Amino acid sequence: MDKRIGLQTVKLEHSPKIMATTSIVGPKEGNGPLSEYFDIILKDDKNGMDSYEQAESSLMYHAIKETIRKAKLEEKDINYLFAGDLLNQLTSSSFVARELDIPFVGLYGACSTMAESLSMASMIVDGGFAKYAIATTSSHFSAAERQFRFPLEFGSQRSETSQWTVTGSGSMLIGLKGNFPEITYITTGKVKDYGIKDANNMGAAMAPAAVDTIYRHFEDTGFKPSDYDLIATGDLGRVGRELTEKLLLEYGYDIKGVYMDCGEEIFDNQVQKTSSGGSGCGCSAVVSCGYIYKNMIQGKFKRVLLVSTGALMSPTSSFQGETIPGIAHGITIEYNLGGEKK
Amino acid sequence: MDKRIGLQTVKLEHSPKIMATTSIVGPKEGNGPLSEYFDIILKDDKNGMDSYEQAESSLMYHAIKETIRKAKLEEKDINYLFAGDLLNQLTSSSFVARELDIPFVGLYGACSTMAESLSMASMIVDGGFAKYAIATTSSHFSAAERQFRFPLEFGSQRSETSQWTVTGSGSMLIGLKGNFPEITYITTGKVKDYGIKDANNMGAAMAPAAVDTIYRHFEDTGFKPSDYDLIATGDLGRVGRELTEKLLLEYGYDIKGVYMDCGEEIFDNQVQKTSSGGSGCGCSAVVSCGYIYKNMIQGKFKRVLLVSTGALMSPTSSFQGETIPGIAHGITIEYNLGGEKK
Repeated sequence: MDKRIGLQTVKLEHSPKIMATTSIVGPKEGNGPLSEYFDIILKDDKNGMDSYEQAESSLMYHAIKETIRKAKLEEKDINYLFAGDLLNQLTSSSFVARELDIPFVGLYGACSTMAESLSMASMIVDGGFAKYAIATTSSHFSAAERQFRFPLEFGSQRSETSQWTVTGSGSMLIGLKGNFPEITYITTGKVKDYGIKDANNMGAAMAPAAVDTIYRHFEDTGFKPSDYDLIATGDLGRVGRELTEKLLLEYGYDIKGVYMDCGEEIFDNQVQKTSSGGSGCGCSAVVSCGYIYKNMIQGKFKRVLLVSTGALMSPTSSFQGETIPGIAHGITIEYNLGGEKK
Repeated sequence: MDKRIGLQTVKLEHSPKIMATTSIVGPKEGNGPLSEYFDIILKDDKNGMDSYEQAESSLMYHAIKETIRKAKLEEKDINYLFAGDLLNQLTSSSFVARELDIPFVGLYGACSTMAESLSMASMIVDGGFAKYAIATTSSHFSAAERQFRFPLEFGSQRSETSQWTVTGSGSMLIGLKGNFPEITYITTGKVKDYGIKDANNMGAAMAPAAVDTIYRHFEDTGFKPSDYDLIATGDLGRVGRELTEKLLLEYGYDIKGVYMDCGEEIFDNQVQKTSSGGSGCGCSAVVSCGYIYKNMIQGKFKRVLLVSTGALMSPTSSFQGETIPGIAHGITIEYNLGGEKK
């Protein structure tokens, strides 16, 4: 029954399937390069609600409901909801869970939360504790900006290394039935802190965690970069993506040919002025539910390593002079009609 | 392989064991009625640190290290750390994880987090994904008070229904070896909101969730109140405990003879002026790691239902006029040298 391989990785016994996904994004994300892959693009980033916080909840709620509908299931069929977001006390997720008749497990890993929720949902289904589970996260630019940085009305300048919180929510339904992309390996990350203090340079703060998890994943599984069609980090942005490539090369792994960062790809910085790229736990959620999942279904990617990355500081810890700890979790998703699975 | 029974409960296949626990509390908790059951009582609630936030992290760090030591294991033997706390962005837990060489899963369920982390650790070990896992939470009166309510220097008056955040951390080590109290059933709760808006009456806000989870646990497992030597809710306080007893009686379950609330028992309100009782996710953590675990080891309790309860609001959601959603998770812990396990 031991499913552990290597130091930090588990190999799932029943390869839980991602039976359906939904991605919902705001207008800015809908104008970005990945536009065609999103299920729903809002015209109004408040989504008709009174506050940005309520708007964020409404995105997650609809992402979940739509995902359950796509899988031709009902709320009562879902045994666990694994959800998280960036707002203090996870209110986006909790207020969604209040509207749903599903047992709820709240998770926080900052922008790594999509991989965290997907890890937990996959293991819980694989272990026989659930027939179906939902993994979801959300973030909202305006709710995050005023909580973490400045009042929106202040119009603060942005540094070149700063990132732009994605408005969006992605939801995945995990179960054991059907022919869908499968979760095969999970590498759970350790917290790494290389002493970065600048909350406008989260990419640099998170890169060491991404490097550590990807390196450990290769060592534990025996995979090489060329075994993957795509390795996608969560939201390191351009700065963090460059650092990650460089550091992994020093460890003997050249991932450049198969590597992208969700945060770098979701916006076009030239046109959209998003500096280093997108961030927020909605970022890797909508890119994995949209671009990655849809390309897997169409056979473009057969094996993908999703590595959502999180910066684990708070405004209080930054004010107190603390450095920024980072974390990253890696998940192998495979979809191959013709066999050849390792 | 299906471990689900009833609607919201799982029966664990391998009965993961709580191989060791550690409870660390502040001076006020150390002066309370459960004093003799705590492993470490601080003389200084800052624990020699510069801030209350750092102090909270230091409590959790020592609770984890001591628990690993008691089990005669090392950090590298632990496959997962499931941890959570009340501070924004879970900084107490993240900053602890930074100091430990253990893969980290951050959880947030407000004061229900001890049962949440213990649920996840138990299922992950039971499912073969980990040999050993740590479940832990912490809270700190002074860090919570200034984040959730008022500056400490303000000296705000407290209402009769208000609760006092426990300064403390509890840690449990879960594995499959040895003769120790075992986790046998887990009932994961749904979010319930009966429209309470008063953040000084969290017991009333959380009681419906506790009632729902306990009721569901009885229905799913077939247990009756008399099958338990103790049913312990997390931190409903006196007000919430009275409501829970009354509401469950309406559902046909009289739990009065075996029921206590951790928040009500940890302080002596007459002497310590704590109004309705203790709260904070350290509350059910230190009471379960201390009083409950030690009484189980000594044979006083053979079967206990631990039901940590959480109020899932934030200051922002309260300012925006939102009501307070509650959640509760139930865990059956059994220890019986002579058999008779259901």
